[in-house]
Amino acid sequence: MTSRAPRFGANYTPSAGWFHHWLDFDLDTVRRDFDGLADLGLDHVRLFALWPYFQPNRTLVRPRAVEQLLSMVDAAAERGLECSVDALQGHLSSFDFLPAWTQSWHGTDLFADPRVIEGQRSYLRTLASALAGRPGVLGMSVGNEFSQFANVAHPGYQALGTTAAHRWLGLMLEACEEGAPGLAHCHSEYDAAFFDPRHPFTPAATARQGAMTTIHSWVFNGTAQRYGGLSEESARLAEYLIELGRGWAVDPHRPLWLQEIGAPEPHVPETDAADFARRSVAHALDCEDVWGVTWWCSHDVSRALGDFPELEYSLGLIRNDRSHKALGRAFGELAGSVWKRPATRTTALLLEVGPENPDDGAAPHVPALAGPAVGAAGRATCAPGGGFFDAWMRLAKTGRRPAVVLSSRLPGTESGDAAYLAARGITDLLRPQDL
Amino acid sequence: MTSRAPRFGANYTPSAGWFHHWLDFDLDTVRRDFDGLADLGLDHVRLFALWPYFQPNRTLVRPRAVEQLLSMVDAAAERGLECSVDALQGHLSSFDFLPAWTQSWHGTDLFADPRVIEGQRSYLRTLASALAGRPGVLGMSVGNEFSQFANVAHPGYQALGTTAAHRWLGLMLEACEEGAPGLAHCHSEYDAAFFDPRHPFTPAATARQGAMTTIHSWVFNGTAQRYGGLSEESARLAEYLIELGRGWAVDPHRPLWLQEIGAPEPHVPETDAADFARRSVAHALDCEDVWGVTWWCSHDVSRALGDFPELEYSLGLIRNDRSHKALGRAFGELAGSVWKRPATRTTALLLEVGPENPDDGAAPHVPALAGPAVGAAGRATCAPGGGFFDAWMRLAKTGRRPAVVLSSRLPGTESGDAAYLAARGITDLLRPQDL
Repeated sequence: MTSRAPRFGANYTPSAGWFHHWLDFDLDTVRRDFDGLADLGLDHVRLFALWPYFQPNRTLVRPRAVEQLLSMVDAAAERGLECSVDALQGHLSSFDFLPAWTQSWHGTDLFADPRVIEGQRSYLRTLASALAGRPGVLGMSVGNEFSQFANVAHPGYQALGTTAAHRWLGLMLEACEEGAPGLAHCHSEYDAAFFDPRHPFTPAATARQGAMTTIHSWVFNGTAQRYGGLSEESARLAEYLIELGRGWAVDPHRPLWLQEIGAPEPHVPETDAADFARRSVAHALDCEDVWGVTWWCSHDVSRALGDFPELEYSLGLIRNDRSHKALGRAFGELAGSVWKRPATRTTALLLEVGPENPDDGAAPHVPALAGPAVGAAGRATCAPGGGFFDAWMRLAKTGRRPAVVLSSRLPGTESGDAAYLAARGITDLLRPQDL
Repeated sequence: MTSRAPRFGANYTPSAGWFHHWLDFDLDTVRRDFDGLADLGLDHVRLFALWPYFQPNRTLVRPRAVEQLLSMVDAAAERGLECSVDALQGHLSSFDFLPAWTQSWHGTDLFADPRVIEGQRSYLRTLASALAGRPGVLGMSVGNEFSQFANVAHPGYQALGTTAAHRWLGLMLEACEEGAPGLAHCHSEYDAAFFDPRHPFTPAATARQGAMTTIHSWVFNGTAQRYGGLSEESARLAEYLIELGRGWAVDPHRPLWLQEIGAPEPHVPETDAADFARRSVAHALDCEDVWGVTWWCSHDVSRALGDFPELEYSLGLIRNDRSHKALGRAFGELAGSVWKRPATRTTALLLEVGPENPDDGAAPHVPALAGPAVGAAGRATCAPGGGFFDAWMRLAKTGRRPAVVLSSRLPGTESGDAAYLAARGITDLLRPQDL
């Protein structure tokens, strides 16, 4: 992964009808949208099925919806755009989409009910099977930030334990793999996994399950509010999350995908969006093993559609009428730039966590998928305003290029590994309290 | 209304894809389904839009969905089938369908939030406008049993007061009227309005708002469980609900529409369904002012679709493969029969209720839309197993053909009217406790 140029792409938001375009699918419109992205010099798109439209009944994954998806994949490939496909939407831009067969009188646990899980697996397997062998298909994703439905902040959230969350992810990824063996199947977590002590989906799940660690970097998560949208903290948020993700990984060179990053108004004014993109991407690509950067999003949401949070209307690289924006041109220039392979980070900040949890029968000294237990302090300290966050940012501003190392991986701990720091090339290990 | 033959029709459940057929709309399939209903001799169908498919965003009522609906209306008219169109589905066969813009992070009160109400009105007005002037259109309905979302039995129900419920109904019906003036616009209530003391939608709302009083008669409401699916009580349930509806009306000759009646297994075994239909329809049409009978439903649900309550798979007049059933043939024979205009019911059973509530500024002695206050006893006594229900059934079994009169309408009460009993032709008024 490290020897190739970083990939640049966009989260594809259809210019006509937003994701409701599936209801009035028009391939020519999609083609024109893709033309604009190819013109910017991008090389991939992330595509989003809408779950209730694709699987309106548990036993019906609509063949026509699958055909439409395949026609999109082909249209993208014709323009040199590879595709990654998210299935369980699930959640997009403040709107939730759940099929009737999981709701209300059929209300069952989205993560634990065997009937629902089999339905989800059937859906994922069906899409993956259809995509398998198609030119230009990178892989599937379980769904966009689906774990929001298990976060206590979500209206009507579903209580879930960490073990059950990991199990569910494993079952979903397995279904993708059954449908399309060998592709890069991922799951897409938002930063609650790293920051929110109440969230059942853990940093370890993010960094140890699926083919890549996906990073969603949004400065409206408190970073912009606390430090300013154009602050160093905001411009380095993606870099920080990437290093945090690497710190939680088992494989020191597991690839990371900056799968979502955007310039949300008013935190980032339109006139500063291009600069924000340049700074953010430069910092992010100063991390090793970054597969690529996928901007959110391709096209502004039409003002004719109501009820989106205000910032969602202006996140596009391209305007809704397909005219160009400075942001899109800047991102296109980044895509066309030559990127040096970044030097290994030799300085790391130590994140105190509990012991690695060998509950899944892994051999001693092999960190388990479950990862170390993370108590309230362990995650909250990583959030914007937390002690670890601030210490990492202070160190980064000195030019030290900090990585992150978990205390559970240190030699001398039960599951620590003497070779680990060497494999990562870490020579200076600092503690937040020492800064 | 009374001079014409009763109308016979079906609640149209598409044979392919159930109501998800809107996602894969195929007019030829619809035409073949309608052919089967026309062959039975039916004269109308009730059509159901699915709200989230028709209005996926508050400001987007999909033009193509409206066109598809119109093409269905035309296909029906070509076969001599008139149409009534329900918009806010809402609720169908145990499944709930609510657009994302009313749910979760956008969760707002379905009956009280001004933004949601304006969205609902815009949707109703758009459909009504499109249907206005179209041959064969009877009118709109607000939606199928939409008030279920305000019943405490519903998962995540929305608390609502009676006044707000009446106001909401008025606003919805007004939007239908604005779109298609003069058509028979209704709202479709289930029997909780008559039976459930906790339900904010009242019997008065059912019997006093909209062009007709709609009756949904389902023996699985406790009648079959308590008395048997083939009992006299079950066979007379529709008749009873119709007379109850007439009792709550202001206009003694307001038309009533038996909008839903079906023969649900196992309460009514398939071998008895035809007989159940004959008995139920004969009793229902022994009531005056019944506009028609619309069977639930046209076509069995395909076994290929999962998660329906078992009884929903076999409610059709026609099998899912379009083959005929004894039930359908029997209903067709009922449609082809000559029906005498029923004699006026001269015996009535008195339902004790509070005073008519003149809160809407109506003139004295003119019952208000709000109707009398109905306390817990007032509605529960009407439910299967309740004192009023049992008394009415006992009386009916003697051959006395009981009507229902509210105590609030009696001469001598504050809003009672001496002409009322005369207008209804009631000469014998009995009290339940006298039976």
